[in-house]
Amino acid sequence: ADYDKRQYDSPLLTVDAVLFTYHEACLKVLLVQRSNHPELGKWGLPGGFVDLIRDITLEDTVLRKLQEKTGIEPPYLEQLQTIGNAQRDKRGWSVTIAYTALMAFQACYAHVATVADAQWLALDTVAEMDLAFDHQAIISLARERLRQKALYSIVPAYALEETFTLPELQALHEALIGKGLQKKSFRRRIEQAELLIDTGEKRSEGGRPAALYKMKKSAGNYTFVRNLED
Amino acid sequence: ADYDKRQYDSPLLTVDAVLFTYHEACLKVLLVQRSNHPELGKWGLPGGFVDLIRDITLEDTVLRKLQEKTGIEPPYLEQLQTIGNAQRDKRGWSVTIAYTALMAFQACYAHVATVADAQWLALDTVAEMDLAFDHQAIISLARERLRQKALYSIVPAYALEETFTLPELQALHEALIGKGLQKKSFRRRIEQAELLIDTGEKRSEGGRPAALYKMKKSAGNYTFVRNLED
Repeated sequence: ADYDKRQYDSPLLTVDAVLFTYHEACLKVLLVQRSNHPELGKWGLPGGFVDLIRDITLEDTVLRKLQEKTGIEPPYLEQLQTIGNAQRDKRGWSVTIAYTALMAFQACYAHVATVADAQWLALDTVAEMDLAFDHQAIISLARERLRQKALYSIVPAYALEETFTLPELQALHEALIGKGLQKKSFRRRIEQAELLIDTGEKRSEGGRPAALYKMKKSAGNYTFVRNLED
Repeated sequence: ADYDKRQYDSPLLTVDAVLFTYHEACLKVLLVQRSNHPELGKWGLPGGFVDLIRDITLEDTVLRKLQEKTGIEPPYLEQLQTIGNAQRDKRGWSVTIAYTALMAFQACYAHVATVADAQWLALDTVAEMDLAFDHQAIISLARERLRQKALYSIVPAYALEETFTLPELQALHEALIGKGLQKKSFRRRIEQAELLIDTGEKRSEGGRPAALYKMKKSAGNYTFVRNLED
């Protein structure tokens, strides 16, 4: 009885997700327009409070919040960082557990279109916006972490359709890393790591048809010893 | 006014630190015996609640808690992971933001000796104990993260005295990695990276005297491209 938690005045606690996709040769992030104080009307990250009854883990909270906005669960979700301090929320001491998530644009397009307050925005556009709280800084953190992933893994492929071409995957990696990669070398590294399944189908991208691949189940866990621009 | 945080029933929120040191050729972690319910009398990680008045950031909370037990601030502190779920604490939904910290044994020995409920324990001993909450799992997470650091950086050196010999540093890396390293190769890699300052002093370790080094200011931020056992 002497350990009733009400005796401790506790920080506000939320989760937030930086959900990326890659669409029309452009990195995009899902933002939500706030309908509550504080920061009413500003755009920010999808997220919110733990539901102590419905959620069993923090990941349940994030997945529930993302499902509300996208209709599906992201195939990739990873804890990014927890930020907590007295200044980030004018209501007082506030802690947010931030996650990075990836999802194919087409997989959730129809649902996102029905959610009035949610929108995919190009990262370049987002960088110019006055976002709620410290969400701009959280997006920068997630962007940098994703750049590291693009150097050492094919995790970014979770932002593509289920089947994709190697030129598509390379373009995404180049967008994330911020510089061009050698086509031959990229193809060889990916092939040697045996991360993809050739579906046998092809898709034309301007020129000649390119083979369509999908990721093997555990492909996201693979880490290249040398980075992909090496 | 419609956004008073009291309206949301909120999880219990704590920080916990896995504080490592290296002493007498042994990795040790600082544990604290709980003097409160729940898990009264069990040993667990130093940590506790945010003080909404005194703490400005989560790191302030961790540093304050570690200072209470050790008398000093650790030279190395890094966020490890946040664990939150409905089961880890019998009081209900609970979130802990876990940190890894490193500190020299001698730097805090005198203070720790005055704190009745705090003790350095060998990792092997800790593995056999029935610790409070999920602290055993959190220590395993921190241990694995530190193993990775030992492969790619000299961050573990923060668990040594301010001045140390290369054989000492190598022994610590070997303890963390769990296998022997080539002496010549280890020495060459460390020297090439220019991370240490030769103090000009020497210390005898059984045989001939070995040069005493200390870390350069930013040495903890350096990442080896190839890992140290390569």
